[in-house]
Amino acid sequence: MSERIQPARGTRDFLPEDIRRREYVVRIIREVYESYGFEPLETPAIENLETLLGKYGEEGNQLIFKILKRGEKLREALQAEEIKENELADLALRYDLTVPFARVIANYSDKLPKFFKRYQIQPVWRADRPAHGRFREFYQCDLDAIGSRSPLVEAEIFQVIRDVLEKLGFSDFEIRLNHREVLREVVARVGIPQEKQLDAIIAIDKLDKVGYEGVLLEMLKKGISNASAERLLGFLRSCSQKEDNVEILASVKDFIGEKGEGLKNLEEILKLNDVEQLKLDVSLARGLDYYTGAIMEVSVGDLKSSIGGGGRYDNLIGMFSRTPIPACGFSLGLERILVVMQQRRLFPDDATTSNIDVMVTVWSEHLMKQSLQLASELRSQGVRVLVYPQIDKLGKQLRYASQIGARLVCILGENEIAEGKVSIKNLLTGIQEIVNRDELKEKLAV
Amino acid sequence: MSERIQPARGTRDFLPEDIRRREYVVRIIREVYESYGFEPLETPAIENLETLLGKYGEEGNQLIFKILKRGEKLREALQAEEIKENELADLALRYDLTVPFARVIANYSDKLPKFFKRYQIQPVWRADRPAHGRFREFYQCDLDAIGSRSPLVEAEIFQVIRDVLEKLGFSDFEIRLNHREVLREVVARVGIPQEKQLDAIIAIDKLDKVGYEGVLLEMLKKGISNASAERLLGFLRSCSQKEDNVEILASVKDFIGEKGEGLKNLEEILKLNDVEQLKLDVSLARGLDYYTGAIMEVSVGDLKSSIGGGGRYDNLIGMFSRTPIPACGFSLGLERILVVMQQRRLFPDDATTSNIDVMVTVWSEHLMKQSLQLASELRSQGVRVLVYPQIDKLGKQLRYASQIGARLVCILGENEIAEGKVSIKNLLTGIQEIVNRDELKEKLAV
Repeated sequence: MSERIQPARGTRDFLPEDIRRREYVVRIIREVYESYGFEPLETPAIENLETLLGKYGEEGNQLIFKILKRGEKLREALQAEEIKENELADLALRYDLTVPFARVIANYSDKLPKFFKRYQIQPVWRADRPAHGRFREFYQCDLDAIGSRSPLVEAEIFQVIRDVLEKLGFSDFEIRLNHREVLREVVARVGIPQEKQLDAIIAIDKLDKVGYEGVLLEMLKKGISNASAERLLGFLRSCSQKEDNVEILASVKDFIGEKGEGLKNLEEILKLNDVEQLKLDVSLARGLDYYTGAIMEVSVGDLKSSIGGGGRYDNLIGMFSRTPIPACGFSLGLERILVVMQQRRLFPDDATTSNIDVMVTVWSEHLMKQSLQLASELRSQGVRVLVYPQIDKLGKQLRYASQIGARLVCILGENEIAEGKVSIKNLLTGIQEIVNRDELKEKLAV
Repeated sequence: MSERIQPARGTRDFLPEDIRRREYVVRIIREVYESYGFEPLETPAIENLETLLGKYGEEGNQLIFKILKRGEKLREALQAEEIKENELADLALRYDLTVPFARVIANYSDKLPKFFKRYQIQPVWRADRPAHGRFREFYQCDLDAIGSRSPLVEAEIFQVIRDVLEKLGFSDFEIRLNHREVLREVVARVGIPQEKQLDAIIAIDKLDKVGYEGVLLEMLKKGISNASAERLLGFLRSCSQKEDNVEILASVKDFIGEKGEGLKNLEEILKLNDVEQLKLDVSLARGLDYYTGAIMEVSVGDLKSSIGGGGRYDNLIGMFSRTPIPACGFSLGLERILVVMQQRRLFPDDATTSNIDVMVTVWSEHLMKQSLQLASELRSQGVRVLVYPQIDKLGKQLRYASQIGARLVCILGENEIAEGKVSIKNLLTGIQEIVNRDELKEKLAV
């Protein structure tokens, strides 16, 4: 029985209080995103399977929820001699918001301005093993800026992140910045051959989880020489001990020699930046394949996992449209933000309380309509009113009102109606008074 | 190429203007729902397949999008001698908001108040053949009241519907009301045996689409006698020619004899009602299996299809929990409302315009940071500011500002910075003036 009434594994139902907390955070994120001129956009939850396949790396492909074909097409697929998984499905659930957005840009390039800034706050689905804080359905809050390679784009994204986190009440966050091209040059510099450079980067991506020893083992397993791996990790470790971005940048310059476009771009971005929480971190790698330039990740306090990440991906849109269009974006993870905010009690009280101002009681079958009318009157004055839904003892009605968090109760009985009055009971003070119907408005002023 | 960049069949991408229209409507619906004390609730897009199967009738089952099993479980399912469709899937996409809500009520009965009113505005998915105005992903705006059998619940739902539609700008809507038990009694009265009564009701449900002739044929096909069918349709037709609810109710009373609980309930509901757009319609049937009492549907003008429907379903929650809990709800279809509102131009201008107040130009690489800082200053005053993302000719920057709908442009060049000033260009009037940096705030007052 109990399994039948639970949400599917790794997903959650959100009761009113949960929703209010989520909406409080989403409202702040939206307000900040909009203050920078990002505009709202949404895409369907389901995409053609081929739109998603081949965009997230092998591991990502495995985590895509696929939707079974229907009717004749399913029958055909089942008649094949050897049935293949991808032949059974034609659609899939959105895995992130970036790939569908890249598809949208390719599809509506004639309707959208050359430079286009959009935000998108929607759920995504991944067939991951559920764990503490890891869900199969979770919300991402993405922003992306399309059409420009200017370092101004990155500098502005740092500002957005800072503004959002400060408005949510965080003061101890860090935005870590690196650059895919610079990382490649570092990796090349220690003698790792081109075909193993992505392996090295993917290994470095696990540094937070497995430490230097773990990354070393991973690289050796991938056939990278011990000398190269040791030299790479030594350099990353020495950078990690420096505090100052200028100093770290100087070390990188020394290490790879002053020539690459990547380094120049990284320097420009840092020069434009005015967000003091930005920290250059040469060991930041980011898992996804499609990044081409700056990459960034945000963490709060000493939490191991990040609450958001992003970067520049100048080639992804080109996978959908013939003309490559430069792009850079960032995604905040709603669920992790909520977890930390709840631990730190960052929600103001009124963000989570019920939205009912007044409850109207119901006296008798005969007077029910009068209660409905009183409620309508109050609503037309902007008050949120709940009518007790049936005839019951008054005490029971009052207990219900305080259970649901109503502030005031309007009692409408035979006497009150005969005299054109209403009894008002304040549930906080317990004080009850009888007022004229036409004085009600000011008494309830909310 | 072009298919690769389109959304999946029957689904849509929503560009900023679409989103703004949708959010305008959703905001009004939410405000009204909340003014009646309905509280927000959300459920996952994916449900366990067994939660949904057997709730929507045979036709409904066919339209559920099923999600392919993964990994070992999929391999097992594929090794079966005869592979069955339902063995390949373990999850499914939400088909409506009512069944997941019934599951939630059963699951959290200890956390929720005895009477619980919730609203839920989320997409649902149906593998229907896409057609004009019919999508595979569409939003429903549901409200449901749990825990009471009182007719007050129905009377309040009529008020909610009236308030929403009036606030959206509709004046020519009609709320049609009928009662499943009354309809059953009518059907019984003409001599249709118990086991064919649901067939008769399902046939009547198609009256709008196929007319009296079509319903007659459908009933004959189901083995209902010509005499019974003719008598039934004759009665429905005679009721449809009456305008007054009291008159129609009297006819029904006459026809079935004054005895049933259904008729008594319907009378009570009508007595409490104060919504003048409510019309008793004895031929209203509603397709879904789970209704037990009052059923209702809303239509606008002379549109054939309804923009919303609902009713009482006192037994559905009992399919998930051991104790049956009475419930009554209504669902507005967002997509149809949007279509009609667009045809009738019911959107205020500012509901669809861009949200950018000011664009700041960028003069040179050297002065980029100054532009970013000016924008930050303005944002801290509550202005929504977009910075042109790269260096370009001023004319190009101004054209872009007007393309995206910015009202004002702040120009920050060498001279302005040297003098502590900013040039402001009003894109509506074309007037440009130079103001002191500290006067900027009042000049931009938005």
